[in-house]
Amino acid sequence: VSAFLPQLSIRTKRDGGRLADDELRAFVRGAADGSIPDYQLSALLMAIFLRGLDDRELATWADAMLHSGDVLDLSAIARPKVDKHSTGGVGDKISLPLAPAVAACGVAVPMVSGRGLGHTGGTLDKLESIPGFTVDLPVERFTELVDRLGCCLIGQTARIAPADRKLYALRDVTATVESIPLIASSIMSKKLAEGIDALVLDCKVGDGAFMTTIERARELCAAMQAIGRAAGKRVTAVLTRMDAPIGRTIGNALEVEESIEVLRGGGPADTRELTVELGAEMLALGGVASGDAARARIARALDDGSALALFGRLVEAQGGDARVIDRPREVLPRAKTRTPVLAPAAGVVSAMRSRDLGTAALLLGAGRKRTADAVDPSAGIELVAHLGDRVERGQPVAFLCHGDLPSDAVERAAALTIGAYDLGGSAPAPLSRILEVLR
Amino acid sequence: VSAFLPQLSIRTKRDGGRLADDELRAFVRGAADGSIPDYQLSALLMAIFLRGLDDRELATWADAMLHSGDVLDLSAIARPKVDKHSTGGVGDKISLPLAPAVAACGVAVPMVSGRGLGHTGGTLDKLESIPGFTVDLPVERFTELVDRLGCCLIGQTARIAPADRKLYALRDVTATVESIPLIASSIMSKKLAEGIDALVLDCKVGDGAFMTTIERARELCAAMQAIGRAAGKRVTAVLTRMDAPIGRTIGNALEVEESIEVLRGGGPADTRELTVELGAEMLALGGVASGDAARARIARALDDGSALALFGRLVEAQGGDARVIDRPREVLPRAKTRTPVLAPAAGVVSAMRSRDLGTAALLLGAGRKRTADAVDPSAGIELVAHLGDRVERGQPVAFLCHGDLPSDAVERAAALTIGAYDLGGSAPAPLSRILEVLR
Repeated sequence: VSAFLPQLSIRTKRDGGRLADDELRAFVRGAADGSIPDYQLSALLMAIFLRGLDDRELATWADAMLHSGDVLDLSAIARPKVDKHSTGGVGDKISLPLAPAVAACGVAVPMVSGRGLGHTGGTLDKLESIPGFTVDLPVERFTELVDRLGCCLIGQTARIAPADRKLYALRDVTATVESIPLIASSIMSKKLAEGIDALVLDCKVGDGAFMTTIERARELCAAMQAIGRAAGKRVTAVLTRMDAPIGRTIGNALEVEESIEVLRGGGPADTRELTVELGAEMLALGGVASGDAARARIARALDDGSALALFGRLVEAQGGDARVIDRPREVLPRAKTRTPVLAPAAGVVSAMRSRDLGTAALLLGAGRKRTADAVDPSAGIELVAHLGDRVERGQPVAFLCHGDLPSDAVERAAALTIGAYDLGGSAPAPLSRILEVLR
Repeated sequence: VSAFLPQLSIRTKRDGGRLADDELRAFVRGAADGSIPDYQLSALLMAIFLRGLDDRELATWADAMLHSGDVLDLSAIARPKVDKHSTGGVGDKISLPLAPAVAACGVAVPMVSGRGLGHTGGTLDKLESIPGFTVDLPVERFTELVDRLGCCLIGQTARIAPADRKLYALRDVTATVESIPLIASSIMSKKLAEGIDALVLDCKVGDGAFMTTIERARELCAAMQAIGRAAGKRVTAVLTRMDAPIGRTIGNALEVEESIEVLRGGGPADTRELTVELGAEMLALGGVASGDAARARIARALDDGSALALFGRLVEAQGGDARVIDRPREVLPRAKTRTPVLAPAAGVVSAMRSRDLGTAALLLGAGRKRTADAVDPSAGIELVAHLGDRVERGQPVAFLCHGDLPSDAVERAAALTIGAYDLGGSAPAPLSRILEVLR
């Protein structure tokens, strides 16, 4: 469009109208190259927040964001290439056992991950708690490892979807984050830039998640599936319960240790369940197996040591100390202090508020309040008591793992932790983490 | 508020909530001093555009804008001080005869006016077509003239409502102009800064006006009255018809000439009617007279030469050539060329689209597309045929007055002018310009 005037397009969206492909692409290009001023971008973001984008607009917007930067070309890799993305939970370490388990079953997993922010953790931070492990690999090395091992886990480069980085930073300071089309296009533009064939979306629902209701979660999944459809990529959305934390650990090194238990065929039941179910959907998208057969393939890869061995090779290839798979407690950093949190009364754990537990872990140093903060890889929480467990008065429900901190930080984390437990008279019915699967 | 975070307040408004006084004042202060970045201001403006402000928020927002700069103190002037504000029309020269007529009746008129933009004209541009006339007077001189003569007409200084100037510039490029609370607070903050006791608002309604429906016009008036009420100032709103242009001239010097006709007791009926009706409301607010008695006072001031004499003294005091009141055609700049626009068929003028006529005058040099443009004081349109007039084929309906222009500019203006006339079979019923008065 020769006569593109941002304010005219902002007006159209403000009044609930449809933006043409050219207008949407002009905005995304202008965000990436800086030619549209921030004040016009933020007015448009607010108008999109309040008026929405239809499926066509959404697909164009996401495609423009995707093509604002580099798109990896993994076409030389013969195997199907399927990634998993989680909208972020507390204690969500699933990528660590999942990627090698799926790769061990013949589906390549080119995984570009993020860092933790706020009460949720990030895969990159967890991996970096393994001494020597690097998530900064050149694209050629990433491609080579995906081809040779079947998986590789790296961080997002500055050249992937630069328009998203610009818009995300603006959304953060203009109260336009929690918009389904803006979230969906942000995630999908980065995931499609990996050069994948298909994606499994783990959409967390509940108190500890970004989406607190199942209706909003379904809307988000539908938006991401619409973007995937328009790009010719299949997206399976798995809605999973995010009430109590996943597994029994929160914190980077602690979660790596627990992931290795899962890779040894053990680990907490919910953590293994998520790995098996999400892995089975990835195998289905990769055309390797589906349903119970796919679940059995993933379970076997966990039980027969093939996934663990692959994880060891991955750690080795990414510069980490591969002895971690056999002696995690020796290799991983340990917190200087373990402060017990004691049950104030006897009872059965009937509910756990994972958001508060995530915030407590953050206060202990496991997470970051701002992007620029450093994390303490050894910090976090060991959850001794989990849903349905009986505790006696004065018995530890959890241990806070931390370094030298101001005592008020530890006290606040302890208060948040004890407050996050509901000690009732009876155990809740054991529930699957899986709420529904949208294929 | 020690912990004011703009994004939290933007979120509140985005979700349709109420902003606290402190939050509103912090935004306006941040706009004036530059401490809140443009992208947050524009996100807030869009949220206000789509979610609105309630009466309390509106009053606080307007009060904060008013106090972002200087507020004139006219308390030394004993007479009641009443101003008139028009939302802007085509051919709207009413301020010129109105201010001296009202002042001649004993009510002081401290008038701070604006310049024309787009298809509507501005009082300052009209006054400046009088050779030597200056609208840039120091505040002390303005106050002195209001006291001595009863009226003075100046331009807005940079020190009046600086937050409004900042926000207005942002609104212009972020499609957040046409918002009732934002328009109302912008106008009222500037008017209340004049130190007036009361205000008559001439709210134009129709094709040539900013408010095209009477419902929207009523909403705007209600918002401005709410702001006035909160500030302890009475506001009378007069809704007036803005279909055909006001009077028979559009353009700066042409409108001054027509205003002088009104000040001589003549002039087009609608132009005199508006002067008398708006003047009567100003006298009522000033406590001098009301109803028919007030109308008679204004009419007498126009008919007995007292308003004209006062206008001459005003021109003299503001540096202009006061001979203009007796020999306007000699004193005012004349256009080099008068291009007739001929009727394509015989008929009676049944409708005139004033927006197109305003745009035609702009193309001839009478107005500005951008704030920085210069105007040609002699340019404009003389409307030979007006509502209800019979025209024959080939007879001029209007003359385009202009200097040396590219021929396509004159052709476009001529096409707009002829297209603005509806030539029907019968004359429309003569209608008053006054639609309703809200006191």
